[in-house]
Amino acid sequence: MTTKMRSEIAEQPAALRATLDSLLPRIDEVRAVGERTRQLLFIARGTSDNAAVYGRYLVESHAGRLAALAAPSIATTYKRKLDLDGVLAVAISQSGRTEEIVETLTWAKDCGAATVGITNGGPDSPLAQAADVALCTEAGEEKAVPATKTYTTQLAALAVLALGLGADVDVAELRRVPEAVEKLIAEPGEVAAVVEGLLDKPGVVVSGRGLAFSTALETALKLKEACYLHAMGLSYADLLHGPIAVVDADTPALLVAAENSPTLSGTVALARAGTAALNGPDLPEWVAPMGLIIPGQLLTEALARRLGIDPDAPRGLNKVTQTD
Amino acid sequence: MTTKMRSEIAEQPAALRATLDSLLPRIDEVRAVGERTRQLLFIARGTSDNAAVYGRYLVESHAGRLAALAAPSIATTYKRKLDLDGVLAVAISQSGRTEEIVETLTWAKDCGAATVGITNGGPDSPLAQAADVALCTEAGEEKAVPATKTYTTQLAALAVLALGLGADVDVAELRRVPEAVEKLIAEPGEVAAVVEGLLDKPGVVVSGRGLAFSTALETALKLKEACYLHAMGLSYADLLHGPIAVVDADTPALLVAAENSPTLSGTVALARAGTAALNGPDLPEWVAPMGLIIPGQLLTEALARRLGIDPDAPRGLNKVTQTD
Repeated sequence: MTTKMRSEIAEQPAALRATLDSLLPRIDEVRAVGERTRQLLFIARGTSDNAAVYGRYLVESHAGRLAALAAPSIATTYKRKLDLDGVLAVAISQSGRTEEIVETLTWAKDCGAATVGITNGGPDSPLAQAADVALCTEAGEEKAVPATKTYTTQLAALAVLALGLGADVDVAELRRVPEAVEKLIAEPGEVAAVVEGLLDKPGVVVSGRGLAFSTALETALKLKEACYLHAMGLSYADLLHGPIAVVDADTPALLVAAENSPTLSGTVALARAGTAALNGPDLPEWVAPMGLIIPGQLLTEALARRLGIDPDAPRGLNKVTQTD
Repeated sequence: MTTKMRSEIAEQPAALRATLDSLLPRIDEVRAVGERTRQLLFIARGTSDNAAVYGRYLVESHAGRLAALAAPSIATTYKRKLDLDGVLAVAISQSGRTEEIVETLTWAKDCGAATVGITNGGPDSPLAQAADVALCTEAGEEKAVPATKTYTTQLAALAVLALGLGADVDVAELRRVPEAVEKLIAEPGEVAAVVEGLLDKPGVVVSGRGLAFSTALETALKLKEACYLHAMGLSYADLLHGPIAVVDADTPALLVAAENSPTLSGTVALARAGTAALNGPDLPEWVAPMGLIIPGQLLTEALARRLGIDPDAPRGLNKVTQTD
């Protein structure tokens, strides 16, 4: 039996193509809102928060603008106004209906920010309605609880956002992403060997830095959601500042880096012994995270089934998460 | 035998008193540098990064300024300049000698930021030398690898920083902290029962939100460093967005909240069954994190010994961590 999660992983090349076809013609809209601001504030939770981490590193490293992740509780729990003049607030929500995220974006607008919403919930979703500019991803309906195609299309929307903000990158490289993802789904590397290596392990460390940090966080979240693994996603710099103590000879580590990335050597330096290799995409670093997550998605889906878990419906989770 | 870690936990009331005596008279210096800026950017790693999380929530919730955590790799790996005009960059390092942190603070200054350094390394440390204003904590030498008194005195320095930035709080409440911490060390609650509850567990979830989020992160880091536990520190909002799947009947959860905090009800809602209680400090929320961490420190030290680990010297760690 093919799970919904496996089908939706396979739908990503088409979802990415549809999203880029829809959003690339709208770069001028992003440029217009970007010209009124000088820095970014991302608002998101869960998988969308991992997408925000990609957006944050992409905008800082390639568009030269300060970018940060918001603490929604300041808006929703402490109800404190901040001076957000000159800030472009970017809220990301797969459903577009998570109240905490919509409320925090509305708060940001009240604080003086310009606003962008990134959602797969369509132009009528509360998030799209609340934003000055709505960038709707075209992933189609996602049925499995662990997000896959809604995540990679969020990354595509963030790449379009960065282009609108003047990132020093080549749009042709972004257009190559769907094909590179397609190739990677067909040839992801030694997924079965890695599944065997993770059986009977209580925890796993997933490490990546810079633009690949988002992939480390998202791979770890997938393994937590669908395989119930204590998975820590962190940069190698953070790993060395304490959590490395958890890692013994029995703790598997998944290391993520793009080819030609300045973080590659530091990441490789963590590898202590020969291990199984998952493939990466044939893409430059700035768009690589749309491919780097693919082996992690395939690994999660296969490991969940091997553990007797239905990856489409892990315990304790619903498709739309409501938090206050 | 008393471990160094246990001795240093007990030294915190004196360390906090000395730090407040030294830094409270310098609020005007902070005010002067604060007046030239409108938002904050914290630069830190490891335990100091958890202190930065406290600083971030404190400054946003009580001083009404946007605050964010920097991504050091933008400075050190990607070597990208950002526009930091109007930003107060605050670097935190126990030793004051972590090159990555000093380099990132210097980068921030080059990008136009005003700078503050918070360190226990003294006024001659590279971090203090690099900063416009150096706030030196007076914790004395810390010998155990897991930071305790250097962490709580960093929080005290951050409370002074918030006062200098005009936080709407009462300085008398800050002056009560050393005594409240002293009382908590004497009466921390059912530490022994919690130690027993964590034996033979591969992982633990530590959850707190808002100002107590820093405590959740730091408690989890301590348990990782000295007990080799897969400990996840996260807010209850983040927990519900995926990681809750990891939590089954066999996974212990430590929940952290200050009395009278707007996050208390959401945190308590996570508790599913009667469990052991650790005490909190008799302090208002904005200074509570200086006390809330105490039971976590005591728990870590006792659990490490129970597991046959020397908490003063966990595997894989040194007192000064160098990362690039």
